[in-house]
Parts: sequence; structure tokens; C-alpha cells
Amino acid sequence: MNKISGVLRSYFPIIEWGKEYSSKTLVNDLVVSIIVSIMLIPQSLAYAQLAGLPPEVGLYASMAPLLLYAIFGTSRSLSVGPVAVTSLMTLAAVSPIVAQGTPEYQGAAMALAMLTGLILIILGFLKLGFLSNFMSFPVMSGLGTAVGIQIATGQLTPVLGIPSKGGTFLSQIISLVQNCGQINIYTAAIGVPAFIFLLLVRKNLANLLTRAGMGKGTAGILSKMGPVFAIVITILFVSGFGLADKGVKIVGTVPSGLPSISLPPFDFKLWSQLATPALLIAIIAYVASISVAQTLASKKRQHIDPNQELVALGAANIGASLSGGFPVAGGFSRSIVNFEAGAETPAAGAYTAVGIALVALFLTPLLYFLPSATLGATIMVAVLSLVNFKAVKQTWAFSRTDAIAMALTIILTLTLGVIAGLIAGIGISLVMHLYRTSRPHVAIVGQIPGTQHFRNIERHEVVTISGIVSMRVDESLYFPNARFLENSVSEIVAKNPEIRHFILNCSAVNTIDASGLESLKAINQRLKDGGIAFHLSEVKGPIMDHLKKTQFYQELKGRIHFTHYDAVYSIDPDLAKKTLEKARN
Amino acid sequence: MNKISGVLRSYFPIIEWGKEYSSKTLVNDLVVSIIVSIMLIPQSLAYAQLAGLPPEVGLYASMAPLLLYAIFGTSRSLSVGPVAVTSLMTLAAVSPIVAQGTPEYQGAAMALAMLTGLILIILGFLKLGFLSNFMSFPVMSGLGTAVGIQIATGQLTPVLGIPSKGGTFLSQIISLVQNCGQINIYTAAIGVPAFIFLLLVRKNLANLLTRAGMGKGTAGILSKMGPVFAIVITILFVSGFGLADKGVKIVGTVPSGLPSISLPPFDFKLWSQLATPALLIAIIAYVASISVAQTLASKKRQHIDPNQELVALGAANIGASLSGGFPVAGGFSRSIVNFEAGAETPAAGAYTAVGIALVALFLTPLLYFLPSATLGATIMVAVLSLVNFKAVKQTWAFSRTDAIAMALTIILTLTLGVIAGLIAGIGISLVMHLYRTSRPHVAIVGQIPGTQHFRNIERHEVVTISGIVSMRVDESLYFPNARFLENSVSEIVAKNPEIRHFILNCSAVNTIDASGLESLKAINQRLKDGGIAFHLSEVKGPIMDHLKKTQFYQELKGRIHFTHYDAVYSIDPDLAKKTLEKARN
Repeated sequence: MNKISGVLRSYFPIIEWGKEYSSKTLVNDLVVSIIVSIMLIPQSLAYAQLAGLPPEVGLYASMAPLLLYAIFGTSRSLSVGPVAVTSLMTLAAVSPIVAQGTPEYQGAAMALAMLTGLILIILGFLKLGFLSNFMSFPVMSGLGTAVGIQIATGQLTPVLGIPSKGGTFLSQIISLVQNCGQINIYTAAIGVPAFIFLLLVRKNLANLLTRAGMGKGTAGILSKMGPVFAIVITILFVSGFGLADKGVKIVGTVPSGLPSISLPPFDFKLWSQLATPALLIAIIAYVASISVAQTLASKKRQHIDPNQELVALGAANIGASLSGGFPVAGGFSRSIVNFEAGAETPAAGAYTAVGIALVALFLTPLLYFLPSATLGATIMVAVLSLVNFKAVKQTWAFSRTDAIAMALTIILTLTLGVIAGLIAGIGISLVMHLYRTSRPHVAIVGQIPGTQHFRNIERHEVVTISGIVSMRVDESLYFPNARFLENSVSEIVAKNPEIRHFILNCSAVNTIDASGLESLKAINQRLKDGGIAFHLSEVKGPIMDHLKKTQFYQELKGRIHFTHYDAVYSIDPDLAKKTLEKARN
Repeated sequence: MNKISGVLRSYFPIIEWGKEYSSKTLVNDLVVSIIVSIMLIPQSLAYAQLAGLPPEVGLYASMAPLLLYAIFGTSRSLSVGPVAVTSLMTLAAVSPIVAQGTPEYQGAAMALAMLTGLILIILGFLKLGFLSNFMSFPVMSGLGTAVGIQIATGQLTPVLGIPSKGGTFLSQIISLVQNCGQINIYTAAIGVPAFIFLLLVRKNLANLLTRAGMGKGTAGILSKMGPVFAIVITILFVSGFGLADKGVKIVGTVPSGLPSISLPPFDFKLWSQLATPALLIAIIAYVASISVAQTLASKKRQHIDPNQELVALGAANIGASLSGGFPVAGGFSRSIVNFEAGAETPAAGAYTAVGIALVALFLTPLLYFLPSATLGATIMVAVLSLVNFKAVKQTWAFSRTDAIAMALTIILTLTLGVIAGLIAGIGISLVMHLYRTSRPHVAIVGQIPGTQHFRNIERHEVVTISGIVSMRVDESLYFPNARFLENSVSEIVAKNPEIRHFILNCSAVNTIDASGLESLKAINQRLKDGGIAFHLSEVKGPIMDHLKKTQFYQELKGRIHFTHYDAVYSIDPDLAKKTLEKARN
């Protein structure tokens, strides 16, 4: 019984926090949810526009995911819904297959969310969260910068009223330049001030309010209300001056009511075309969400279960799909609002869903005159924070190969599009990684007099004993470097004809795979052929457990030493002592 | 001047050993070359048949490569020419593109050799030999087993006279079973005894001769003469009994004379189709050759220069191409003969080339009645030594993931063919490797009383100080495990509410990439948010050099300690001492 309830509790974290839920927490979470709902409205509408979908779809994608995450999620602050990267990836995945503006387009977006959700849940059940590791920092950072630039460029179309073809960054730029004569000044007269206003609010309002004596949390939340204010003002402006007749694009009739529950169209060809984007969206959504969740959880020393997060995000995406939405993830800015407003349990998210439902039911007529320009400006300001060229420079100082991988990810994403660029970036990261591990640091070590420490003879004053060479390899022995090790040993032996004993210090060897073992065998055989004894020292416990099962161990048995000191002093104790004494004098 | 002569010497090792060349060495090398030439004739003819080429092409491919390797190679024993794996890969690469038996087929084989040679030389000049590391032991071993099975099966056609379609192992088996009624008994009457004879000679003759008092080297060489003996006997047999008229396939007219020097056809489409196989052949040829060369060199403590070997093998392949041949590599059995016969310099290889040229000029009429069955039996016996199922079992005991990679390489090579199987094998090896490195071994460590050693608290009797947690991660910090580290730290912190100091022991950390650095930053920030100080200990020199350039280092400066002991004892020296004393009592 206990076991079952443990499993239940791990898959339904709601059982855990639900028990401690009090009326005080309820009031708190309700207040939080009102603030967050208001803030989410513009975001939801804007990201639907970015994904090429009607605005109400943004609202739909913001209800079921919040409810489902509240049941399955382990973070108490994460807010799940449409975010910039996944919205752009939805556009990139669906628009080459189905014409935008058709019901089929929305169906394909639902299918994409369903696939994303299924992949996330499978990864969660199989505990394959480790796959997300291959989205390295250079790739994620490079992707963010490229996506930020591309989205911001794309939003010049609604903000300035210039028609454009869409597609990759390059094709957008060309199209914008060609069509710049068709700018709609009324649209620009709304879009540009809205953009500047939102930028100033985002950058400075929180500081100003804090300096004026407001609490940091409240100031932060108020500064995030900028988009709501911009929406209200521009709606009044457009309706008051009749700008919709002057070519200013407005949202128009947003169907009111809740989404109906329906399955996405099942079309094998469509699903197989969406499989790769769905996998990438799943991994990106997971990486983004888990990092936000852990950052916020650590502030209150709360625990996040990475595999359960996969399940929760999967459920959220399936929920989005069934309610007519598109792929969702845990967003940084929306989660921060949740956290700063003081959300204590995932229930705050559920109440937020109710808040958005109320908007969808009763307030959509108010959105009729909302100009697309305002939504575009909202998106532009939001994504500019993703652009981070400084990261390339900072990374260059620390690791050139990583900086190159980052720069290439940016360039390829901008030229080939977000999906091809992402795949190329991952490939480049992998090759760079394997290149680095193929040439590990290798050092000849000697004893630091007066200690039992052995250090690099090129960096420290050390003692060595004639006839004995001690080599430390600073890497696990696996196939990327197996041959390098053989070559290094061969070179050292060829250069030092007086060697009789060769000791390999394994203190930095964390794993040995079959290729590494073959190399050790080959080295042992070759040294033997050359009349040299092969020793190992400081082999780690887990490796010894495996090594003991091999023939290599049987051959080397007596020559595997617990410490390097033992290894050196067991070969010729007298010579060792004499050498050390001599060095001391 | 000295620098130029150094560069010259490194690209032309012949300058080095040429200086010491004496008349005594000359006589020795000449004797060796006679033995080796005789042994190479059947091999050359047989591998040409395997590659789907006329027999004289095998002779052509055995001259220029030997001469060129003598000039550029650094091994004194390696013998370069047609070998089993590259011959099969030639067949697999060319036969889907060009019809076998046409001049275009030979032209494509020449183009493949040219491409292989160019790739090898480029890899050599760019010092990219490390790429060969990705041919891991499981892949190489699995490939050997699969290739051995496939070639042996394919040779049932000439040995038994059963017509077959060729292709992958599966299609061959089906074809052989369907056509088994068409067996030619005269052919089988030659092929089967030849096979049994060669098998017995290979397995037992050397032992018998040694027991009879013969020197081990001479016995080894004589036992490798079996194929020559089989050829002579079966030629006499076929011509004596007029078996060629009974459906026994014979070699027929072999054009005598030396190959003309000509360029392979340049056809962009053809070359681009051959590019991937050429890359794979280049890497396989290199891996096979370097391992033979190093094994033999170590017996005499000679030095092999891996990058120069790439250049030498590249020159050998270009030579093969220009003289009408097909891809070549350093062969194990032929090199062993060279070594055991006592070759002292690469000149022995050059003399061997002359010996084969003499055969091509004057002895080809003698090969007219040579039955294909004998060549088939020669190949079958040679490739059976590649088959090694025991390796799967032995590897299973040491590393399950590697054993799985090996088994999958065997299965995929047999079902998909040698090229697709090889690519799949490399991919599987990579994913397995990344999977392993994504979950490093992590241990909480404590002090072993009376020492300055810190070891795993689960494996040793150790002392820990309240409020301080020391964690050792047994792996470099790079993107495959960056998130794992963050999760591990979060879990430990969530489980130990009393932590005030967290020390990460980096003694096993060999590199940190940009993703690892980001993780460290995130961990530092999260610990700080939770009121915990983050320390590092035993960071290696090369890592510190890079770390010093980062902002992370500035933030942590005072909390990076040379030894773990320092780290623990600098935090609260009194408490540390008291804890240790208490543990001692």
C-alpha cells in the first residue's frame, strides 16, 4: 500500500501540497492569480500571432496547460503557457506544410502540441531526461540570440505595417527592404510609440518605483503590467480615431467562449513531418522550464524532480492540444511574476487558468479594436532580452571551441531557419566536444619532496627515480582518446630508452570503456615486448569492480597499486629512498 | 637549413634509414622480399576477385603502394596492399553504381582509391588523425566479425560453384539456398579440399613444424606458404584433367606486363557518390594499419609517427589508383610475414614490389588454369580469423553498452551492408558514449582519520563535519552532464537542510566547457539564494588558467582551495579539529 501511495505521490505532486492547503494559502494564491491572469492576456494573444494562429488560440493554450501543470508539476512557481521560442518553432514547423490562416493550420499546430506532449511523457517515463543535456549552453544561448533577432525582425511587419513574406531572417530582411515603401504610417504611429513605451517600462520602471519607495516585488510586478496598459491605450486610440479604416490591422472579432475539447487530426504523413520539430520543441521546452523551475525553487530550498517535470510538461502540451492550442513551455517572465507575486502552490496557476477563462468568456468583445502593432511591440520587447552577443565574447575568453559553436549556431539559425540551425548547432557542439576529449592532458609526474603527492614535472619541483616513468592522464579512457594514449606511451618509451617500469596514474580516470581496455591491453603487450613492466595506480573503486572481470586484470594483478606512492616505492624501495634523500640534500 | 631538413626528414623517413643502409641490410631485405612476394601473389589475386575486379588488378595494386610506402612510411615492417575489409568495401561502394566486369567498374575502383588517398593525405597534413578514434573498438571488432561472415559466405559461390546474386549477407544466403541445386561438383571437389587443406595448414602447420624442431619464425613463414602450394596443385589438377570444360571457373588469360600509369576518370557525380565510402575506407585503412605498425614497432622499440602514416597510406592509395589498382591498407598477415622474415627497412617492401612486377611480366601465363575456387578458399580461410564472437561475450562482462554497440554493429552490417552498418555502428557508439558520460559517478566524501585523504562515505570509514558537505564528481564538467550536476547538488541541498558550506572536489574534473561553467554559475547562485557558501577544491592547473578569466572566478576567488583538506579546515578550524578528535576516540 505504502509503495503505491509513494508512486502516486511522485506522479501526482498535488497530493503532497494539497494536504497542507489552508484558507490562508487560498487567499494568497487567489490574489496572485488575478495579477498573473491580467499580465498573461497580452502575452497569450501576442504569441498566438507569432505562431501564425488566431488570437483566441493563445487564450486556449493558456488554460488547460496551467491546470494540468498544477496537478503534475513539482515546481511551485513555474507558469506554463505559450513562449517565444516554441511559438516561433511552431510557425517554422507548420507553415511550410499547411497554408497559414486555414483551419488545417490550427489542426497541424494541435498535432504538433500533441506530439510534443507525447514525446515529453515518454521521455519522462523512460527517465530519458538526460537527452536534454545535448542542448548545450552554446547551442541554447546561440539559439536564443538568433531567435530573438529573427522574431524582432519579423514583428517589424505588424509594428510598421510593412507587408513581408516571412521565412528565415534573411528572407524577411530582403522582403522588408523591398516593401519598405508600403509602410503604413498610422500603424507605425501606434507601433513605434508602443515599442518605445514598453522598452522604457521594462528597463526603468521597476528601478524608478523602487527608488520611489515601493517594495521590490510590487515594483517588479507593476513594471510587467506595461503591456496591459499599452493594450488599453491603443485600443481606445484605434477605436476613437477610426484608424481601422486607415489600414491599421486590428484583431477583430475574437470568438468568445471556452475551447471545445477535440482531438487533433490524425494524418500519418503530417505527423511524420512534424516528428523532428516536435522532438526539438519538447527538448527546448524542457530545458527552458527546468532551468527556470530550479532557479526559483532554490530560493526557497524546494525540490524539483526533473523526470516528473517531463511528465508534467507533457501533460500540459497534451492539454494544449486537446483544447485547440499549440505547444507550450514554462516561461521565464511569467514564472517570475508568479514567484514575485508570492505564489505558494501550483494552485495559483489553476486559478490563473480560471481568470483567463473568464476573459475568454466575457471580455473578448473589448479586444475587437486591439491593433496587431501593439502585440508586435509586446513581442519585440520581450524577445530582445533573448539577444545576448556578449555571451559569445565571454565564452571566447573561456573556451574558443564553445564560442565558435555558439557563433555558428547564431549564423546557421539566421540563415537556415530555426529548426535546421538548431540541428546543425547540436552537431557542431558534439564534434567540438569529441575533438576536445580526443586529446586529453597528459603529464609525466614526480614526487614533491616531503609529501606523498605526485605532480607534473613541468609545473612543480619534483623527484623522479631513474628507470621509472610515471604518467598521469587527465581524462577517462574511452574511445575518443584510446589511440592518443597508445601514441603518448609509445612516444615516451621511444624517447626514454632507460625505462624499465611504466606507471599509469589513473587518479583522473573516471571510466574505462571497451576501447580504453583494448588500449591498455595493447600498451601492456607492447611494453612487455619492449622489456618494460606496466603498472597502474590509484584506480577508482567503480573501475576496479569492472576491471576485475577481465583477463587484463589477471595479467597485471600484482601491479595495480592503491596509491601512486605505493607503486613507486614497491618497485625498488632502496633506490627510491636514496633518490629522495639525495634530492633533499 | 636545419629546419627544412627536419621537415624533409619528417615527410620522407627514407632519408633517415637510407643513410644507414649497408650491403648487409641489402642482402637481408632481398631475401625477405623473395619470401613475401611469393606469399603475396595468391592474396593479391584473391582480393581482386573479392573486390569484383580482374586478377591482374590485384597485382597492380601490390606494386606502386609498396614502393610509395617505402618512401613515406615510418614503420619498418608494415606491408601495404589489398586487404579483406577494404576489398569488400570497394565491392560494396562500386557495384551499386557501375556494372561489374566493365572497364567503367575498374575506373570507378581507381577513382575510389584516388579519393581514399587524397582524404588520407589531407587528414595527415591537417593532423586530423584523431578522427580515426571514432572508429571505436566495439565498431571495429563488430565490423571484423560481420565482414568475415559476409565474405566467407560470398566465397561459397566460387568455392562450390553455386551462382549467387551478391549483395548483403542476407541476400547472399537467400540466393545461395535458392540456387543450391546448381552446385558444380567439379568445382566443389577442388574448393572444399583446398579450404580444408588451407585451414589445417593455417591452424596447425606452424605448431607441427616448431615441434619438429624448426625455428618459430621460419615455421610461421612456411605455414603461410600454404596458399602458394594450393595454387600450384590445383592449377596442375585443373589443367591435367581438363576440368575447365566441366564448368570449373578458371582465371583464364591474365594480361602480362606492367600497369600503365593513368588518371582515374573524373566524373563529378561518380566522385560524389564515392566520397562517403572513400572516407570510411580511409579511416578503416588507417586504423588497421596504425595498429599493426605500432604492435610490430614496439617489439623493437621503434617509433611510429601517426600523422606521417596518414600521408604514407595516402600516397600508397594514390599510387594504387594511378597504376590501375583499388584501395589498399596495411595488412596484418602480410606485415607479420615481413616482420618474421626479418625485414629491417622499408626497402624490403620495395624489393617485394619488384618481385611482383616480375610475376606480372613473365609468369601470368602460368595462372591461366588457376581455379577461382582456390582463390575463394584462400579468402575464406583468411577472413575467418576476423570472426570473433567471443569478443562480444568478453566485452559484455566489462561494459554492457559497448557489448550492445558491438552486437548491433554485427547485425546491422549483415543486414544493411558494410557501409550502412559501419555508419550505424559509429552512431550507436557515440550515443552510448554520451549516455554514459551524462550520468557521472558522484560521491559525498569524508576524511579518512589520520590522513589528508577524502573518500566516498559509502565505501570508507570517514569523518564529516556538520554543516559542511563535500561532493566529488568523477567526470569532467561538460555539456553532457552539466544538468546532472545541477540536479545532484539540488537534491543534496534539499535533503540536508543544515548545510552552510558546499565543497565541490574537482580532483577528477579534467576539463570544464562553457556549459559546465554555466552550471557552476547556476549552482553558485542557487546555493547563495539558499544561504549556502560554494567552494571548489583541487582544481587542476590547466582549468584554473581558464577559470581565472571568468566572472565566476571573481565571485568565488577566496573559496577555491588547493587541497580538499585546506578547504574543509579553513571554514571552521576549531570545529574541524574537534570533530576529528571525537572520531578518533
